[in-house]
Amino acid sequence: MKFVKIPSIAIARLSVYARNLDLLDQKGVEVISSGRLADICGVNPAQIRKDLAYFGQFGVRGVGYYVQELLPEIRKILGLDKEWRLGLVGAGNLGSALLRHAEFIHGSYTFVAAFDRKPKRIGATIGGVDVSPLEAMSRLVKKNGVEIGVIAVKPTWAQDTADLLVKAGVKGIMNFAPVHLQCPSQIFVENIDFGLRLERLFYRLTPPQSKRHRVHMKSGWVIAPK
Amino acid sequence: MKFVKIPSIAIARLSVYARNLDLLDQKGVEVISSGRLADICGVNPAQIRKDLAYFGQFGVRGVGYYVQELLPEIRKILGLDKEWRLGLVGAGNLGSALLRHAEFIHGSYTFVAAFDRKPKRIGATIGGVDVSPLEAMSRLVKKNGVEIGVIAVKPTWAQDTADLLVKAGVKGIMNFAPVHLQCPSQIFVENIDFGLRLERLFYRLTPPQSKRHRVHMKSGWVIAPK
Repeated sequence: MKFVKIPSIAIARLSVYARNLDLLDQKGVEVISSGRLADICGVNPAQIRKDLAYFGQFGVRGVGYYVQELLPEIRKILGLDKEWRLGLVGAGNLGSALLRHAEFIHGSYTFVAAFDRKPKRIGATIGGVDVSPLEAMSRLVKKNGVEIGVIAVKPTWAQDTADLLVKAGVKGIMNFAPVHLQCPSQIFVENIDFGLRLERLFYRLTPPQSKRHRVHMKSGWVIAPK
Repeated sequence: MKFVKIPSIAIARLSVYARNLDLLDQKGVEVISSGRLADICGVNPAQIRKDLAYFGQFGVRGVGYYVQELLPEIRKILGLDKEWRLGLVGAGNLGSALLRHAEFIHGSYTFVAAFDRKPKRIGATIGGVDVSPLEAMSRLVKKNGVEIGVIAVKPTWAQDTADLLVKAGVKGIMNFAPVHLQCPSQIFVENIDFGLRLERLFYRLTPPQSKRHRVHMKSGWVIAPK
């Protein structure tokens, strides 16, 4: 038995490969060379081969990849061969955008419930999903088979929301609040934090302030005096 | 002269430290031990010391960090000591949520322009910002000093939008469309891709399919038979 660690960046790249293979498939492309696929995905061909090698042998030497063979394999690896059932908490601006999502997220999922603590939002239907009170969460998560809770509430409510979702029985949480959530170890949490990404951009656009450091902004290399 | 590479994850952690120091400052905390700060930020104390050491010497041995000294230093490093000027393209659901942002992003920035190609959206005021036609971009980017373009358009329009923003003179792009943008090398691009993060969650929640692999889902380790 051999142990191999699959870096999460490799998983992100698999998602990118799947998207582009999907587009190629829609265009009727049947076979693609690893060089061409790499170009489209913005990586190098060796990277694609390495990422795929974690999961088995794909592609034909001297030919490339058969789109209709590789795509379903990657979809299976990523868990995109089933429809995931999502429940949203927080039907404000961002939450509503997520429910009406189509342009920004494309994947194998569907929102089957939405919750909000504000009475004025309860009873609304957004993107085809009814907004229910928090009190209904436990019941609706079970009834509708919600697997993943999506947190789009204010930071001050995020931890309480996570606790409620875990108690209701979700397996994973997608957190849009800029808060470090404390969850039991068997719950998978992914954070999407706009602020962190914006600040990374600010940092890269900021000329180094200190005379003690000069930073090559594009590469992230710092030239330090010692 | 010594060269040091600062990993982008260290920059993300600096953002987290800044946020939590800001909260501590608001609560009137003057000094905090590295152990306590580490707890709040969800990292270990050695990590904080290492991340800060890239930029100089901070903190007092046996005492900890003076909140009102460390916070402005980190803010300066991250470029948060100025207000960044953002221009949004795409005033749909997500774009509107970003303009009315307060809950989800907190940082030193302001939207000074918004653009859309759909006539019905032009002339609207969202979160205090007027929505203008694409034709006005070049003029308004200069007039309002837009430094960063935020792309919240459909994937099919994302590259055209990036080209327009670059031509208009932005220095950086925050891209919410699930598309790999081609930009000149002097333009900094950050991508926020909901779909990729969701798919990473799906992957982690998916039991390994192949009999040839067993994956320890929490750690990402694969147990491969050879």
